[in-house]
Amino acid sequence: MRIQVINPNTSQGMTDKIATAAKAVALSNTTIIATQPQHGPSTVESAFDEIIASAALMDEIQTGIEHDVDAHIIACFGDPGLDAARELSSVPVIGIAEAAFHMASLITRRFSVVTTMSSTLPTAHHLLDRYGFSQMCASVRATDIPVKELESMTSTLYSALYHECLLAINDDGAEAIVLGCAGMADLVARLSSALNVPVIDGVAAAVKLAESLDQLGLRTAKSGFYAAPKPKAFVGRYQHWSKE
Amino acid sequence: MRIQVINPNTSQGMTDKIATAAKAVALSNTTIIATQPQHGPSTVESAFDEIIASAALMDEIQTGIEHDVDAHIIACFGDPGLDAARELSSVPVIGIAEAAFHMASLITRRFSVVTTMSSTLPTAHHLLDRYGFSQMCASVRATDIPVKELESMTSTLYSALYHECLLAINDDGAEAIVLGCAGMADLVARLSSALNVPVIDGVAAAVKLAESLDQLGLRTAKSGFYAAPKPKAFVGRYQHWSKE
Amino acid sequence: MRIQVINPNTSQGMTDKIATAAKAVALSNTTIIATQPQHGPSTVESAFDEIIASAALMDEIQTGIEHDVDAHIIACFGDPGLDAARELSSVPVIGIAEAAFHMASLITRRFSVVTTMSSTLPTAHHLLDRYGFSQMCASVRATDIPVKELESMTSTLYSALYHECLLAINDDGAEAIVLGCAGMADLVARLSSALNVPVIDGVAAAVKLAESLDQLGLRTAKSGFYAAPKPKAFVGRYQHWSKE
Amino acid sequence: MRIQVINPNTSQGMTDKIATAAKAVALSNTTIIATQPQHGPSTVESAFDEIIASAALMDEIQTGIEHDVDAHIIACFGDPGLDAARELSSVPVIGIAEAAFHMASLITRRFSVVTTMSSTLPTAHHLLDRYGFSQMCASVRATDIPVKELESMTSTLYSALYHECLLAINDDGAEAIVLGCAGMADLVARLSSALNVPVIDGVAAAVKLAESLDQLGLRTAKSGFYAAPKPKAFVGRYQHWSKE
Amino acid sequence: MRIQVINPNTSQGMTDKIATAAKAVALSNTTIIATQPQHGPSTVESAFDEIIASAALMDEIQTGIEHDVDAHIIACFGDPGLDAARELSSVPVIGIAEAAFHMASLITRRFSVVTTMSSTLPTAHHLLDRYGFSQMCASVRATDIPVKELESMTSTLYSALYHECLLAINDDGAEAIVLGCAGMADLVARLSSALNVPVIDGVAAAVKLAESLDQLGLRTAKSGFYAAPKPKAFVGRYQHWSKE
Amino acid sequence: MRIQVINPNTSQGMTDKIATAAKAVALSNTTIIATQPQHGPSTVESAFDEIIASAALMDEIQTGIEHDVDAHIIACFGDPGLDAARELSSVPVIGIAEAAFHMASLITRRFSVVTTMSSTLPTAHHLLDRYGFSQMCASVRATDIPVKELESMTSTLYSALYHECLLAINDDGAEAIVLGCAGMADLVARLSSALNVPVIDGVAAAVKLAESLDQLGLRTAKSGFYAAPKPKAFVGRYQHWSKE
Repeated sequence: MRIQVINPNTSQGMTDKIATAAKAVALSNTTIIATQPQHGPSTVESAFDEIIASAALMDEIQTGIEHDVDAHIIACFGDPGLDAARELSSVPVIGIAEAAFHMASLITRRFSVVTTMSSTLPTAHHLLDRYGFSQMCASVRATDIPVKELESMTSTLYSALYHECLLAINDDGAEAIVLGCAGMADLVARLSSALNVPVIDGVAAAVKLAESLDQLGLRTAKSGFYAAPKPKAFVGRYQHWSKE
Repeated sequence: MRIQVINPNTSQGMTDKIATAAKAVALSNTTIIATQPQHGPSTVESAFDEIIASAALMDEIQTGIEHDVDAHIIACFGDPGLDAARELSSVPVIGIAEAAFHMASLITRRFSVVTTMSSTLPTAHHLLDRYGFSQMCASVRATDIPVKELESMTSTLYSALYHECLLAINDDGAEAIVLGCAGMADLVARLSSALNVPVIDGVAAAVKLAESLDQLGLRTAKSGFYAAPKPKAFVGRYQHWSKE
Repeated sequence: MRIQVINPNTSQGMTDKIATAAKAVALSNTTIIATQPQHGPSTVESAFDEIIASAALMDEIQTGIEHDVDAHIIACFGDPGLDAARELSSVPVIGIAEAAFHMASLITRRFSVVTTMSSTLPTAHHLLDRYGFSQMCASVRATDIPVKELESMTSTLYSALYHECLLAINDDGAEAIVLGCAGMADLVARLSSALNVPVIDGVAAAVKLAESLDQLGLRTAKSGFYAAPKPKAFVGRYQHWSKE
Repeated sequence: MRIQVINPNTSQGMTDKIATAAKAVALSNTTIIATQPQHGPSTVESAFDEIIASAALMDEIQTGIEHDVDAHIIACFGDPGLDAARELSSVPVIGIAEAAFHMASLITRRFSVVTTMSSTLPTAHHLLDRYGFSQMCASVRATDIPVKELESMTSTLYSALYHECLLAINDDGAEAIVLGCAGMADLVARLSSALNVPVIDGVAAAVKLAESLDQLGLRTAKSGFYAAPKPKAFVGRYQHWSKE
Repeated sequence: MRIQVINPNTSQGMTDKIATAAKAVALSNTTIIATQPQHGPSTVESAFDEIIASAALMDEIQTGIEHDVDAHIIACFGDPGLDAARELSSVPVIGIAEAAFHMASLITRRFSVVTTMSSTLPTAHHLLDRYGFSQMCASVRATDIPVKELESMTSTLYSALYHECLLAINDDGAEAIVLGCAGMADLVARLSSALNVPVIDGVAAAVKLAESLDQLGLRTAKSGFYAAPKPKAFVGRYQHWSKE
Repeated sequence: MRIQVINPNTSQGMTDKIATAAKAVALSNTTIIATQPQHGPSTVESAFDEIIASAALMDEIQTGIEHDVDAHIIACFGDPGLDAARELSSVPVIGIAEAAFHMASLITRRFSVVTTMSSTLPTAHHLLDRYGFSQMCASVRATDIPVKELESMTSTLYSALYHECLLAINDDGAEAIVLGCAGMADLVARLSSALNVPVIDGVAAAVKLAESLDQLGLRTAKSGFYAAPKPKAFVGRYQHWSKE
């Protein structure tokens, strides 16, 4: 199968990291097509960034549709544009936050999310609520490491992340850690070994769920909430969406 | 005070309707500045439409900021882009759905929302949850009248709307009706008189709340969730947001 | 319009404070009629006090009805007798706790309530639940300052209040403060300036909401929960309510 | 032990009925002291009635305290004044709604409440929420039989009640019925036999719970929420409460 | 009446303790039949222990049925096998955790549970949720005293228990303590006197509730969830359940 | 990898069906080891059946551990013994109900469960709550087809199942169907094609999730809730578990 893995921000370094993480767990007959928008912010760290990145992401989804991919993965922990992407496409769309939560809930009773900036905490809590996993979440903790710096992870930054995971385990009772940013995918093995608890990366989790749905023959239900958007007029810089 | 009332879709007819509704209840020293984006969909009826409209809406908020408005109103019942707009601006931003719910909850114990397309029902339920009003909502009902047709409301369409309100009152126990679309603002008086229960339009409600906050000297709290977005690079069609 | 602002306790000093706070934000054509019961407790600090004050309050509501006021405000943070008052009267009735919560929820994602005696904490939590604002409340904190002492606010008392607000902001993550007693209305400006976050007083908030409903032509829905009480016999000291 | 059973309304017929129901299940060494206020409404069917009845009820609680009763029962299905009574007294206070819910939850997974007037439905729902039994409640149904008419129950009225119970069982999946008015206590046996499901009367249930607490040596916790009200000045018709 | 009190583990010492606690509060005409399974674990401290103990418990319930007992009490704080027992028997079945929670909720607004091993905390939280008492629970605290050691309670162990209760009261705001293990029944008086708050033991509470239901003529509703299990084939060591 | 798929009842026909469903979706290098207990009920249709089946299931889990399987699947829609199995084993354990819910929540916003006997409805609702999927569940519907009859599915029975799915879609708004019994696994394709919505079988879903966890290197967290049970004495028919 062919999975389109979309980094919703415009940082090539992040896209490369995500591609590596996805390919590392993909089955041999799965092709990973990693991509990023041509428009939008270099990182997603606020509701404003997310609004802009989501709009730009729609073009990538459309490109994926035109290239007949079998699934789309939205590789940003806020799962930006997930509902809209499920409306646009008829093949499965998976967000990396939901993917990580699903996997965590299968192997633990209480997990913590350790993420980047404090400004993204409300988004994480909102997603936990929406997907139904709040009751299994011991805490959401921020390292206040800017997303951009994850690309060149120094030992200082690793220490900050490790320390926050330790607090989640010791103070909040976390039995496993969900990494709250696609840019942390390369740290799973190191952290898991150091912490001695399961550590979950959403990019890898999403790849396995996309393959699972494909092998089960399951696609997004299109008869209700995720029905295709009604064709209509779009103007200005969004005129290419016009279908009236 | 000066209130920017933004219709997030690109239909001039809808903008005019909204302007009329806003001006009808504004205090004599309140100036209503009605506007609409230069980009985006002609109506907002799906998650996809909302993603695109929200991105376009940000430019309007920025314009409002540059013109020193005292408050922004997002005049679409899904309150698209509300959090992002509160990050961008430092004066109050009010969505018409939240405004209508607040007013309804002050005069009734159970209200119903009567809206346009069934496809917007999940959004209405999501907003009721987010704002905390689900327990006071007797039902959300759709007329399946396309938003666009509200502009030229025939008697057939009025009948459909009236009938749905009647079902909300008689079958669901609604004590008041919240109109679920900015395009219904001109029907408040007629429906209220015909149904003999309070009927609430979000555009008018939002104007009064914006004036109230202004007179109380209250502005959006900028120390936490609604802090200004961190400046960063944007590329492509969003390059004008670049502040790095 | 004419707004009856009722202090539910029998302290004239508190009534004067409330009147001043209400008049400070009222529109020029709004008349504030501040009043207090002739019966009942000097302060409301327990469920018992509230039961007695609520019964006495009903007479004030009736007086307001007979004087054709356009709205009633119940100026005690527990919103005592709110449902009963809405049954009795056909014009809007607003509690100052609900008013403060509504305003706070329009400008912040997480607010704290800072109130007087610890004994009133369960009431505050109950109201947050009933109105649907619990999820936006970071904490409810008590200063254990007796309500009566608020009348002669010494610097010691101000310090206690300021310190508790600071804890709410720094430890609980509050982005704004709701003052949990009508007797604190005169401290809004001083606290807001010292704390550098929005500080909200329920009396002022209620006045603006009463004016808003009036200008929107909205009154309490009388077809359901708030229908007028069925006339019946009352005996003893409540014989004046007899309508059989 | 001596249990004070208080009918919060001023109808002697209702008080007699309640006394009979209480005595029928009391242990041989339990004395039932049935009483009613000298002030207030003849029935409790609205929030307004409840406010007045609750204030009058406090005097009865005080009389019970002065006569050294071992427990108080508030024999009206809305449990009016329960928290205030627990503050005033140091022996257990039990409401008949809570008593009925507790018993129902021990023998069934889903019960329905069948009550008198529709106007009391919100109160029943509020109590289910407050006590934590909402999830076990299949429905709350009203017969719209005025409380007063329960005193002279004709076959027509019995039929209405029976029919509503049947709907609760067949349509709502109720496995047992909670009777939602103290005035229905004499119908338990007849209804239970006719319906072939458990039927629960709160007055009888409250007597058994009061005896149980007494035999366990358990009294209301007075260290927190139910601490005695702080002594203070009361004026006018409530001057007898003054303790300053 | 005759109440079968079942200790679900196979420790005779624990059964004796439970029998003593039950007899201490039983009415003079109540016979307590204390029993324990012939199969299963010596203590119940994990989900695995509970699964095995529950299966063994079913044989004891069946023996009780054959001896025509009037009620069954499951005397382990996890209420193991409660639903299954209610299906098997037609007389009331009461768990000691639910019994303790019911009694606590009648005399307090916030109670804490103090229990044995940390490994049982999730079970306690699950039961609080299931029965609807979570909102009244200030905390669940573990002493990490193995159940087995409760049989020979040294002063060290008493101190640990006392200390944890004190933390619940002072740090968590508990107004009363529920003891989270049948093996603590003999400490109620000592702890209550030392702590000066109500202390509740589930075994005693369950006896009073069983007597109460009996005197009210109430039995488990058998028309829905608790209907008798459909007869069917069982093989192997469970062949004695075969009824096909 | 090697996956042990356990049918918790003692029906060989059901075990065969489950084995077929599991093998149909397994990867080429996955070995499916289908098994059933030597003890217990022929079907699981009540809480009592589940208690017995769960205890018997533990022996199968232990056998799986001794044969070094890489994952266990509990192939009964009530997920019996799931927590206990996770304590016993250190490799992943997956219930088919949770597996089906996870998959459904990735492709739909509202799904319905269509199951066998009405008596299993409360279990389904309990699992939806526990796993956090209640908000996405449109309805749980029973066909009242005994589990045993699923083995020889006649056209009458298929019709009953099809009809109930149709009601879920048309009346309850389901966008996809989760089949509520392992014995329905062979009907997925036929129903999905007839209904034109996604139809999800838990056995197949669980196989894919087990493979996914394996490929991600994720195992049950053993540091908290799922820690191995403390060794202790077991007597009677459970003596083989004794480890003291």
